[in-house]
Amino acid sequence: MTTDNSLEKTSLGTRKISRRDVLKTAGIGGIGALIGASGVGGLLSMTENKASGSGKEDMVPFYGKHQAGIVTKPQDHVYFAALDVTASEKTTLIKLFKEWTEAAAFMTTGKPIGELTSNEFLPPKDTGEAAGLSASNLTITFGAGPSLFVKNGEDRFGLKHKQPQELVDLPKFPLDALEKEWTGGDLCIQACADDPQVAFHAVRNLIRIARGKAILRWAQPGFQRTKQADAKEGTPRNLFGFKDGTVNPDVKDEQQLNKQVWVQPGDGPNWLTGGSYLVVRRIQMFIEVWDRTNLREQENTFGRYRDSGAPLGQKGEFDQLDLKNKKENGDYFIPVDSHVRLSHGDGTQKILRRAYSYSNGMDLKTGSFDAGLLFLCFQRTPSKQFIPIQQRLAKMDKLNEYTSHRGSAIFACFPGTKQGGYIGETLFK
Amino acid sequence: MTTDNSLEKTSLGTRKISRRDVLKTAGIGGIGALIGASGVGGLLSMTENKASGSGKEDMVPFYGKHQAGIVTKPQDHVYFAALDVTASEKTTLIKLFKEWTEAAAFMTTGKPIGELTSNEFLPPKDTGEAAGLSASNLTITFGAGPSLFVKNGEDRFGLKHKQPQELVDLPKFPLDALEKEWTGGDLCIQACADDPQVAFHAVRNLIRIARGKAILRWAQPGFQRTKQADAKEGTPRNLFGFKDGTVNPDVKDEQQLNKQVWVQPGDGPNWLTGGSYLVVRRIQMFIEVWDRTNLREQENTFGRYRDSGAPLGQKGEFDQLDLKNKKENGDYFIPVDSHVRLSHGDGTQKILRRAYSYSNGMDLKTGSFDAGLLFLCFQRTPSKQFIPIQQRLAKMDKLNEYTSHRGSAIFACFPGTKQGGYIGETLFK
Repeated sequence: MTTDNSLEKTSLGTRKISRRDVLKTAGIGGIGALIGASGVGGLLSMTENKASGSGKEDMVPFYGKHQAGIVTKPQDHVYFAALDVTASEKTTLIKLFKEWTEAAAFMTTGKPIGELTSNEFLPPKDTGEAAGLSASNLTITFGAGPSLFVKNGEDRFGLKHKQPQELVDLPKFPLDALEKEWTGGDLCIQACADDPQVAFHAVRNLIRIARGKAILRWAQPGFQRTKQADAKEGTPRNLFGFKDGTVNPDVKDEQQLNKQVWVQPGDGPNWLTGGSYLVVRRIQMFIEVWDRTNLREQENTFGRYRDSGAPLGQKGEFDQLDLKNKKENGDYFIPVDSHVRLSHGDGTQKILRRAYSYSNGMDLKTGSFDAGLLFLCFQRTPSKQFIPIQQRLAKMDKLNEYTSHRGSAIFACFPGTKQGGYIGETLFK
Repeated sequence: MTTDNSLEKTSLGTRKISRRDVLKTAGIGGIGALIGASGVGGLLSMTENKASGSGKEDMVPFYGKHQAGIVTKPQDHVYFAALDVTASEKTTLIKLFKEWTEAAAFMTTGKPIGELTSNEFLPPKDTGEAAGLSASNLTITFGAGPSLFVKNGEDRFGLKHKQPQELVDLPKFPLDALEKEWTGGDLCIQACADDPQVAFHAVRNLIRIARGKAILRWAQPGFQRTKQADAKEGTPRNLFGFKDGTVNPDVKDEQQLNKQVWVQPGDGPNWLTGGSYLVVRRIQMFIEVWDRTNLREQENTFGRYRDSGAPLGQKGEFDQLDLKNKKENGDYFIPVDSHVRLSHGDGTQKILRRAYSYSNGMDLKTGSFDAGLLFLCFQRTPSKQFIPIQQRLAKMDKLNEYTSHRGSAIFACFPGTKQGGYIGETLFK
């Protein structure tokens, strides 16, 4: 979607307002129609967010049964932030989530947050760097980590009894090389957009709103390539040059999503029904080492061909994995220690992967590229999904020679909310 | 430009070959037509690179009188790398630049580098993560720093007599807070593309080729937003929410470019004629502090209105700066310590700015965002352009309260080369 400043009708018959429109409305001298937060919101009809993104328009509805940014078609960029809460009262948390919800809903429609300052002696409500940019399919997804419930043995906000059994720190996996600066968090914000400036703008403004209530703990931007030379959308390649994310639950299959992604009634505390668990792993990739490895070894490591993405011994990227397929010499085509075989296991554990590559520059300690994968995955039950998969991988995945897990966190991502409600309401009320 | 795998004619009548095509040609088993580096190159007609990008196709020619990536319309992403040379022989340097030139020319056409491995027992020639992606307007620009000529008093490669007078470390400016890890470099590579994965891929493969000859010294990815909500291309906003880069030389005006950007015959050693000096400053922006500053202060700091980008007291972004314009109370509309007034000076010093924003995540030392501006600018004579401008700014720019220069480097970017030649040839031969 692109808008100009003329009146334009959406399919819903309401006027679309871009960030630029609102900045213009306020005028250079800050005079003009003052559009309050609720006023602008009222002009927009919000519908339930759609499972697979927003179609032709580049706007993903914020409100809905589930939070957007989980089964939404992955955007080109992510800005991921983990936060620590500094407030000590539950009422302050509620205030924060109400403000966040309102601001997030605004930003995902391509508008600046809050009312514009009519007073040049106040800081602008919106930081402004996304003015004039489209919504860029922005989604903002919020989650709560185990430490929001209990930290150092303390029931911080009287929420201990609501902590899901599944929401506990991940077990230490063999070969984990976690660093404190990339691990944990009381809360998380995952902002995804097709424009990195829109994603950054979202997190920055939410952190700003949180001032005095929560602070940044760690943050990582990421990207993925979605624009193919042949204009077809294919599975993106990771920084090892291999397609990553081939086997993912079908986001159009509600039954599959209910089985694998969305927390169901009876799974645990009711407040999380319709939500999902997010596991984040910041995985450094030793790309210089990888780049000195021969193609056969690379393909045996993944268990797939580099070019086509097909399982070894098979033809097409989406061919059903044939783990029993043997070569003439009796060896499996797909080696026993290959990533794809170990990830697959018996095929019963699946996760919805939504990973992004990152490249921060140089790793000052080693002089190598500080690059890798910001692995993000959603699931209904971590103890039956990510954890057993990662236990197999950590034990014998050939890929471990080329990667190192430097960061880790788990969050319970709240269910969605309707207009008038706020994210987190089911937990805090 | 997007290509599919069918034969397609360009305006030049030659077949366009995407990275995917070439990967496919090699086949899963590595069998198939082996297309050598020169073979593929021969299929492509290379013309002089155009001043303003590649028009409708997303390919910017590599060969030309000048290097691409200087007056090329800025792409959405940059991956900038500074390198140190570890080789000790000039012949090794020549070999490196020949290999770099060949690889860069390939990559900028959307193709993988070098011939494909037909041998699965060798590492693939191309690291593969850009397979299937279009050229994405990739440009690769090479430069040489002062330390390539003389380091610790040593004439390392017998090039001392060729060091331009202008190619010396920048003077220390007041308030500089430079850190070694973001400063200097014997060589630089600026890779710009509309896809961050394409830009990263380019630098990664060039660093890989340099193995044993040069190593990474520092690197910084960056982005800018070019997709406006109203589909018009406007001046991008920096992370302070202000338009940045309004006053830039007209890249279509050859006369202006010869005056301000391209090194001219007689300026210094002949080898740099047709090249340009690149000054890089990694400028951290204290966005949390900025965000607590009122709008009037923000606008007085820049000397422009935030919304429109117009100079204070004027109407349009591109209005000629009126520095004498006074308010009723006798004060200048554009304050004496504002960024725009100090940058402008007497209007005789101009630089071609090509800056990108960066956001690396969190600054571990402060807990704030590690975000700012990767300021890149090109010019004919640093001592008459960037240096006097920055001396004025460093002394009294109001913006200094909100920024800190953490990194700095200067490079002489070579002139372009024709097919068959190599970048750096004029210096090394």
